[in-house]
Amino acid sequence: MLWAVIMAGGSGTRFWPESRKNKPKQFLKIFGHKTLLEQTADRVRPLIDRRRILVVTQASNVPLVVKLLKIPASQVIGEPVGRNTAPCAALAAAVALRRDPEAVLAILPSDHRIDDESAYRKALRAALEEARARKMPVTFGIRPAYPHTGFGYLEFGRRSGSRNRFAVHVLKRFCEKPGLARARSFVRAGRYYWNSGMFVWRADELLRATREHQPKIHDLAVKIASGELKAGMKKWFSRMPSVSIDYGLMERIREGILAIPGSFGWNDLGGWQVLPEMWTRDAQRNVVRGRAILIDSFDNIVKCDRRLVALVGVRDQVVVDTPDALLVCHRNKTESVRHVVAALEKKKWKEFL
Amino acid sequence: MLWAVIMAGGSGTRFWPESRKNKPKQFLKIFGHKTLLEQTADRVRPLIDRRRILVVTQASNVPLVVKLLKIPASQVIGEPVGRNTAPCAALAAAVALRRDPEAVLAILPSDHRIDDESAYRKALRAALEEARARKMPVTFGIRPAYPHTGFGYLEFGRRSGSRNRFAVHVLKRFCEKPGLARARSFVRAGRYYWNSGMFVWRADELLRATREHQPKIHDLAVKIASGELKAGMKKWFSRMPSVSIDYGLMERIREGILAIPGSFGWNDLGGWQVLPEMWTRDAQRNVVRGRAILIDSFDNIVKCDRRLVALVGVRDQVVVDTPDALLVCHRNKTESVRHVVAALEKKKWKEFL
Repeated sequence: MLWAVIMAGGSGTRFWPESRKNKPKQFLKIFGHKTLLEQTADRVRPLIDRRRILVVTQASNVPLVVKLLKIPASQVIGEPVGRNTAPCAALAAAVALRRDPEAVLAILPSDHRIDDESAYRKALRAALEEARARKMPVTFGIRPAYPHTGFGYLEFGRRSGSRNRFAVHVLKRFCEKPGLARARSFVRAGRYYWNSGMFVWRADELLRATREHQPKIHDLAVKIASGELKAGMKKWFSRMPSVSIDYGLMERIREGILAIPGSFGWNDLGGWQVLPEMWTRDAQRNVVRGRAILIDSFDNIVKCDRRLVALVGVRDQVVVDTPDALLVCHRNKTESVRHVVAALEKKKWKEFL
Repeated sequence: MLWAVIMAGGSGTRFWPESRKNKPKQFLKIFGHKTLLEQTADRVRPLIDRRRILVVTQASNVPLVVKLLKIPASQVIGEPVGRNTAPCAALAAAVALRRDPEAVLAILPSDHRIDDESAYRKALRAALEEARARKMPVTFGIRPAYPHTGFGYLEFGRRSGSRNRFAVHVLKRFCEKPGLARARSFVRAGRYYWNSGMFVWRADELLRATREHQPKIHDLAVKIASGELKAGMKKWFSRMPSVSIDYGLMERIREGILAIPGSFGWNDLGGWQVLPEMWTRDAQRNVVRGRAILIDSFDNIVKCDRRLVALVGVRDQVVVDTPDALLVCHRNKTESVRHVVAALEKKKWKEFL
C-alpha cells in the first residue's frame, strides 16, 4: 500500500519572526489559509489513505500535528531531539513495515509549496509505481526555471524507461548548492534538476539500504519500532547518528537510484525572498500583505498583521511585523535572518525565539 | 518686564508615527526625559518668571500645557484653529501688554533643541535688553555649520553696535530654504545665518507694527485680549488671516530689524534625520534606541519601544516603531514622512493620525 511520511521536524529560523523555535514554518499559515503541513497532507489524500499518513516531528509538536491533521497519535512520531532525515526515514519505514509489509513510502518535506497539485500527484503516482516495481528509490528533479543558488541539484543520467508517460532516468549524482557560475552551467547543460527533497522508496528497501550503510540507525529504528514507540523514542532515539537521507543513504547507493522530472511548480520556501514568486506585486513591484502605506517605495516585501506599516523612499527591503518583533532585511540578505536567531540565543532573549 | 511667549501650536507630522495630530513633537519626550515644551520653558526660567510665561497652543492641548508647565490656564492661550504665527504673536503681545505695559517678549518655538543653555540665555538676555532699549525686533541667526537646505537663512547687514559682548547687526533680509548650490554660496559668503525662528520684541512695538501691516490681526487681537480671553478666542480667532511673523510683519519692516549671532548649538528638529546629530552612534554608524539586533547593517536610525527590532543587511534607513504603527524610511527621504500623514487623512485611517 502507499504511505506518506511527512517530515515536519525543521526548526524554521528563516522565517523569523513569524516562525519561532516551537512554531516552525510548517505550522504557520504564512502562505495560505491552511498551514503548510495541512497543505502537504491534503495534497496526497487523493492518493493515500489518511490511516497511512505518518508524520515525524518534534515531540513537543505531536499534539499540534494530531489536532491539525486529525490523525491518531499512533501515526505521529515525536522526536525528542533532531537527528536529521535518515533516522527519521528509517524509523518511519520500520513503523510502516510492521503495519504493512508491502509499504511504499512517499517521504515528503512538510514545508514546500506545490502549484499544480494534479500534476504533482501524477508524478508521485508514477514514482510510487516505479519504486514498487523496480525496488529502487525514486527522486524528483524539478526542471530549473533559473540558476538558483539556494537549491541542491540532481544530475540525471541515462534514460531508464518510462512510467505513466513520465521519463524515468538513472540518477547520476547529487550536487550541493552551487555558486552562480556553476548553477548557470547546470542550467545550460540541461541534465541538472533542482533537488526537491522528496523521495519515494519501498519501506523494506529503505531499511535494507539503511542496514547496509547506516547499521546503527537501522538497529535503533527497528528496536524503537518493535517496542512501545513513545517509550522507545525517549530511550533510544538520541543515540541515532545525525545524518541526512541524501548523504547517509542515497550517496552510498551507486547506480541504484531513479529520477523523475517533475513539472508542478515547486519551491522549498527557503526564506522571505520567495514571497514575490507567490503573491501579486503592485505597480511598483511591491508585495504587500496587511495594512500599509508605501510612498516612493519599490521592490519591497511587506507583511504585517494588526499594525500599520509605512514605507517612505524604501527599496528592496523585506519588512515583517509580528506582535512582539519586527524584521527589516534587505531582500538579498534573507539567508542571514538565521543570524538574528543565533544572536537572540546568545543574548538569551528567549521570548523572541 | 521680560516675558516668554512659547509657540506650541504645530501639528508635528514629521515625527510620525511618534508624533500624532493631537500629540505633536513639543509634547513628546523623543529627545530627553522631558518634553520639548518643558525643556523650552525650563531653559528660560533663570531669566523669566514663571508668572510671565505665555503659551499658545491648540485649544485641545491647553489642559496638557497647564499640567506639564504647572502654570495657570490664564497663561495658556488655546487656539480653536491654527492661523500661523502672526496672530499668535499679536494676541500674546496684547495679553502681555494688558498685564505689563513694559513687556518685552521672547517669542520662542516650543520644539527646538538648544545644546548650550547658558550661552543661549546670554544671547537671549542681550537680545531682550537691545529690544527694550532700541524698540526694534531682534532675531537670532545661527552660524551655519554646513549648507543646510532645510532651514531659512538671515542675511546680516551692517554692524549696528554691540550688547553684552554680542555683535548687533541690522538684518538685511529673510531668505527662504535654499537649494544646495545657493546654501553653499550662503555659507561661503559668511554673512548668512540660519534663521532660528526666535524673536525678541517689545509687546507695544509688536502691536504697533501689527496695526500698521496687519490691521485686521491687530484689531481682533486687541478685541480678544480686552474681553474674556477664552470666549473671545472662540468667537473671533477664526477670523484671523493666516500669516507668519516673518512674512506678515518682519518682511514689511524695512531697515528696522536687528540680528544677533547665536552660537549655542541649535536645531529645529525637522525630522528623524536629526537623531544622529544628537545620539551616540555605534561602530557601524547606527543610532539605536530600544532593543534591537543589527546584522550587517550600517548608518541606520532605529527607535523602538517595547518590541524587538532586527535589521539584516540594511543601510541608511530610519526605523521607528510605536505600539500601533511602524515607519521605515530612507534617511534622505524623511521630508516625505508628511506624505504618510496626508495618505492616512485621505484614507480616513484616523486612528493613526
